[in-house]
Amino acid sequence: MSDTEFDIIRRYFMRQISNRRDVITGIGDDAALLQVPAGMELVVCMDTLVDGVHFPTGTPAAAIGHKALAVNLSDLAAMGAEPAWVTLAITLPEPDADWLAGFSQAFFKLADYYKVQLVGGDTTQGPLSITVQAHGFVPQGTALRRQGAQPGDHIFVTGTLGDAGLALQLRGDAGRELQQRLDFPEPRLAAGQALRGIASAAIDISDGLLADLGHLLEKGRLGATVFVDDLPRSVAFTEAVQRHGAQFRELPLSAGDDYELCFTVPAELLQQLAVAQAHFSCSCTRIGTVEKQAGIRCYTADGEGYALNARGYEHFGVLPHG
Amino acid sequence: MSDTEFDIIRRYFMRQISNRRDVITGIGDDAALLQVPAGMELVVCMDTLVDGVHFPTGTPAAAIGHKALAVNLSDLAAMGAEPAWVTLAITLPEPDADWLAGFSQAFFKLADYYKVQLVGGDTTQGPLSITVQAHGFVPQGTALRRQGAQPGDHIFVTGTLGDAGLALQLRGDAGRELQQRLDFPEPRLAAGQALRGIASAAIDISDGLLADLGHLLEKGRLGATVFVDDLPRSVAFTEAVQRHGAQFRELPLSAGDDYELCFTVPAELLQQLAVAQAHFSCSCTRIGTVEKQAGIRCYTADGEGYALNARGYEHFGVLPHG
Repeated sequence: MSDTEFDIIRRYFMRQISNRRDVITGIGDDAALLQVPAGMELVVCMDTLVDGVHFPTGTPAAAIGHKALAVNLSDLAAMGAEPAWVTLAITLPEPDADWLAGFSQAFFKLADYYKVQLVGGDTTQGPLSITVQAHGFVPQGTALRRQGAQPGDHIFVTGTLGDAGLALQLRGDAGRELQQRLDFPEPRLAAGQALRGIASAAIDISDGLLADLGHLLEKGRLGATVFVDDLPRSVAFTEAVQRHGAQFRELPLSAGDDYELCFTVPAELLQQLAVAQAHFSCSCTRIGTVEKQAGIRCYTADGEGYALNARGYEHFGVLPHG
Repeated sequence: MSDTEFDIIRRYFMRQISNRRDVITGIGDDAALLQVPAGMELVVCMDTLVDGVHFPTGTPAAAIGHKALAVNLSDLAAMGAEPAWVTLAITLPEPDADWLAGFSQAFFKLADYYKVQLVGGDTTQGPLSITVQAHGFVPQGTALRRQGAQPGDHIFVTGTLGDAGLALQLRGDAGRELQQRLDFPEPRLAAGQALRGIASAAIDISDGLLADLGHLLEKGRLGATVFVDDLPRSVAFTEAVQRHGAQFRELPLSAGDDYELCFTVPAELLQQLAVAQAHFSCSCTRIGTVEKQAGIRCYTADGEGYALNARGYEHFGVLPHG
């Protein structure tokens, strides 16, 4: 028997445990047939990971399988959505059995944890690249949006910042904890859902705090003050910066690979936030305030203005004039 | 101003005319926010086109832009769905303004024709590859499926077969008509929707008639007789085969790039098919019969058994033992 695309799909991608009742037909027809529950809006996002661009060449297949799904679930988290279905387009130089086993195992481990079902996809031959599209639900009118922050709102982030960025910089020399943060980011789905009705705006930090907070503010032409010494850093991060040098200390401002949430909360809802935090499954730290004046102003704990030489990640640096 | 990813998205992918009422938020947030109409099921498919695999290197950007969308709309057509939304993941070696203009123009021309709205996507740097996911609707319980054919059902195909495959073989030497069929396939959406309640099973021919008819039959462990002289061939195809040689005459059995529909109809619904055909916007030809005995048996017009040496396209030919 020749081991064709259909066999690959069957062998590695049709053994999932999750079997949702809202999936009428999953893999195996021209398209998936799905039922969005009544009263719910559909939330859809798509992210591509390219070898050597979004992960270093040689990254373990399990880390790629986890991350390809996690970065999409992170987008759903930023909308306050509950995940439901995913599709997967996988382009591979050759159908390597070990690689596919590692990839699919990690992909399904994360998918099953969140009861997400793979409902379709495409397998093609070519340079290594993974595109995942995730689908989730939010009750009508409750989605978190990028737009909505108001002057005076408090700015928060989940978890800790800079861990994954530091692991990327140290290339395998970062220690298990930071490497884990880079390879196996945890989408903040519980936090996103708990923030419905509380956060005035939300985004996931995939391009770096400054860049993504900038996206939150730009639609309302707002600005912010950020207290850089308040940015949450893990013990592993602080220790590694002490060991490897101060050039890494700005990573919490600029590194995007942690996939934490950044969100704003009006002062009158801070008490509700305190209650909601019990459902976050992660920490949550206030880092600044939304202001009317455009631009992001950073200050250290002693009130000094903080000069920035860090920018968020952008896929294309400088382009020809078009 | 540096021409970043955001500028690319803004310049080429945010100028669409279509503005659907069921899109609550399109491009510009962490995810799109969408409303599936009451009583409708959601139909979702995804296809990747890789440079040098799914289209020859050097294919015009317009053809790639059209085809990336058309092959997905073709999957929706095979389900009897009405298209609504698409997402687009585009990986480019570099942000080439001419290429992006050509690609996006053709993509949106087709999208606007079918009132399909681009609601999200991702732009990344890397080897040229396009992944499109399309979303459509069908009234509850009316989707066409691959499974459902019964012995005695008649087998039909839309349009003509082999045109695109021949253009691919002749590499630019095929003439305008065949080349057009390869570069700008027309998804058979009108036919698919008109076939709801009539076709017992349907599939789009992306891997070749024999391979895809095989998929229709395999779930019911059925077989078929196909009359090879009845396969619909265009005048351009017949002339080109006369000119370029008989080695191409089997392409209508094996070539997939025409994106026609293959479907089965029970004898008692043939009259309804005749009525529905008025809405097809393309021809429709009976090519055979579903049978209980597994396997596809091909016959010429004089009743001779026809030996096959053509196989459908499969992305991976022969794999290592896994």
